Amino acid sequence: MATIKDVAKLADVSVATVSRVINKSPKASEAAITAVTQAMQALGYRPNANARALVSQSTNTIGVLVGDVSDPFFGAMIKSIDNIARQHGKHLLIGNGYHNADSEREVIELLINNRCDTLIIHSKSLSNAELIAFAKEVPGMVLINRFIAEIADRCIALDNHRGSYLATELLIKNGHQHIGYICSNHDIEDTAQRKQGYLDALHAHNLTAPQSYIEYGSPDEDGGELAMTNLLAKAIPVTAIAAYNDYMAAGCLSVLEGNGLTVPNQMSLIGFDDGLIAKYLHPKLTTVRYPIQIMAEQATQLAFQLATAAKQPTPVEALDSTITHTFVPTLVKRLSVTELH
Amino acid sequence: MATIKDVAKLADVSVATVSRVINKSPKASEAAITAVTQAMQALGYRPNANARALVSQSTNTIGVLVGDVSDPFFGAMIKSIDNIARQHGKHLLIGNGYHNADSEREVIELLINNRCDTLIIHSKSLSNAELIAFAKEVPGMVLINRFIAEIADRCIALDNHRGSYLATELLIKNGHQHIGYICSNHDIEDTAQRKQGYLDALHAHNLTAPQSYIEYGSPDEDGGELAMTNLLAKAIPVTAIAAYNDYMAAGCLSVLEGNGLTVPNQMSLIGFDDGLIAKYLHPKLTTVRYPIQIMAEQATQLAFQLATAAKQPTPVEALDSTITHTFVPTLVKRLSVTELH
Repeated sequence: MATIKDVAKLADVSVATVSRVINKSPKASEAAITAVTQAMQALGYRPNANARALVSQSTNTIGVLVGDVSDPFFGAMIKSIDNIARQHGKHLLIGNGYHNADSEREVIELLINNRCDTLIIHSKSLSNAELIAFAKEVPGMVLINRFIAEIADRCIALDNHRGSYLATELLIKNGHQHIGYICSNHDIEDTAQRKQGYLDALHAHNLTAPQSYIEYGSPDEDGGELAMTNLLAKAIPVTAIAAYNDYMAAGCLSVLEGNGLTVPNQMSLIGFDDGLIAKYLHPKLTTVRYPIQIMAEQATQLAFQLATAAKQPTPVEALDSTITHTFVPTLVKRLSVTELH
Repeated sequence: MATIKDVAKLADVSVATVSRVINKSPKASEAAITAVTQAMQALGYRPNANARALVSQSTNTIGVLVGDVSDPFFGAMIKSIDNIARQHGKHLLIGNGYHNADSEREVIELLINNRCDTLIIHSKSLSNAELIAFAKEVPGMVLINRFIAEIADRCIALDNHRGSYLATELLIKNGHQHIGYICSNHDIEDTAQRKQGYLDALHAHNLTAPQSYIEYGSPDEDGGELAMTNLLAKAIPVTAIAAYNDYMAAGCLSVLEGNGLTVPNQMSLIGFDDGLIAKYLHPKLTTVRYPIQIMAEQATQLAFQLATAAKQPTPVEALDSTITHTFVPTLVKRLSVTELH
């Protein structure tokens, strides 16, 4: 592989001149630009992105930490980040954290060591303290789907509580009084917030929810099947179900179908996320829309603003005021909820 | 941010010594390791991955080009690559090519310029010649889902023809003689191969397929809806449909349902890919399994072998003979195909 020295020799200039041409320095003469460009082409020389990053102390890559890239939720998030990144001529370095503290930490360390000065972090398992420390180290780091009061201006989050509240209220408005909840057993803040939204909506409408109306499982189809099976086994008079997410709702649906209970006529069902599968389910799933695309776009724009501001000789305080830090979910009415007869 | 010079000063050693400690050189003394490590911790100094990459001329990142990371097919592919990568202590740099030649080229250039010596490339739009040139430049580059004869040992591909052949044959074995085909309108090799598999299966069973039995659309749900609508409008006596992929099959399904035709009793339907949505459709979709996970794992292992072999002083010819270069799809029988009554 040709080196910068080979290019300098062929172009008959110094290595420093080649470097100036590569880095588009205004000090490079037209003659030098021509000679160096020709020599680079003749030798098949590629400027080393690592060397350029060393000089500029930053890279053309944005670091992204997600839970699991094979989940379409994160796929949609990454695509939105990529759309904004490309407008800035940047590319993505992506790591999976699998909602595990050690993995999340390892990925963030990797991204920082690779001099990503812009980071979009979806962390569910690291402590607030640890994330605050990372945020302090990297001015262009933004958290998505997490709220930490001390760094609220670095967070883009969803009002999970409101989403479950809306979902439960929709069931109540359809006449349902005995409403079960299919809860995730993952100990993350989303779990607690969504469950509380369900409880608060019931309470606001003077309804009670015995502990027996809530069942738990992993936040996937298997978990939904397990929780729904357990709920049915208790022979409680529920006529409607709110689920932690669409995957768990899909699991509920197959158990209900398997037991001859039709949705929505014998059981209303509402999901959460409006992910890829919601509209493919049968009946098409009524659910709560998690606006991950716009949230990811705004997180990326915010991260760029923060990274740019940090490079100014005098820190710029006023950031773009169009950034929304807490997004509100909305209802997507399809065919899985109906009035209680 | 602390620099390597600050570390050297505090540790009272030379910059070269700090560098030796960071790069785990055997020449570093125990005393130097202790002093430098303590100074790095005291100053919060992070070894620069770019600097280390410059020294070693390679990075700890694997480059991956996919079509679109928000498609669960590519999500599953990336996850498999990541699983193998982590075993080697490597992380992923990912770019979207969107099946567009300019985007694909730009991403590969970026990955090479970032000194990824291991590349997994899913390119559908670059010419064979261009990919061969890239493969020559980067010994650790492997193509997935593409076959180029000149670099066959660098390709991991699927026998698309066989997949469609199997799908069509399943319909024939169920008594169907008038079988329509919902074809993609994307001009990539997969399209031609899958269509030919359908035609060859009919031919092998002495069945004819008039041009009117084939309709085209974009390889997604909308395209499937359009093609199915056009096929129905022609009032041809088809009793079964083979679709280019599961998304198009999903589009067919909603048009059939909307027109009061039940699947499978009035129309049998088979998809291709066995992607995330197949089992959520109603009825659950009979389809052809694209074994992307194991293909991605083998592509990654092959890329590591090739990259490692290229670094040997004497090139190693014999590669792991357990690598399968052409994978064969299998049938996944669910509920959308039935015998012709």
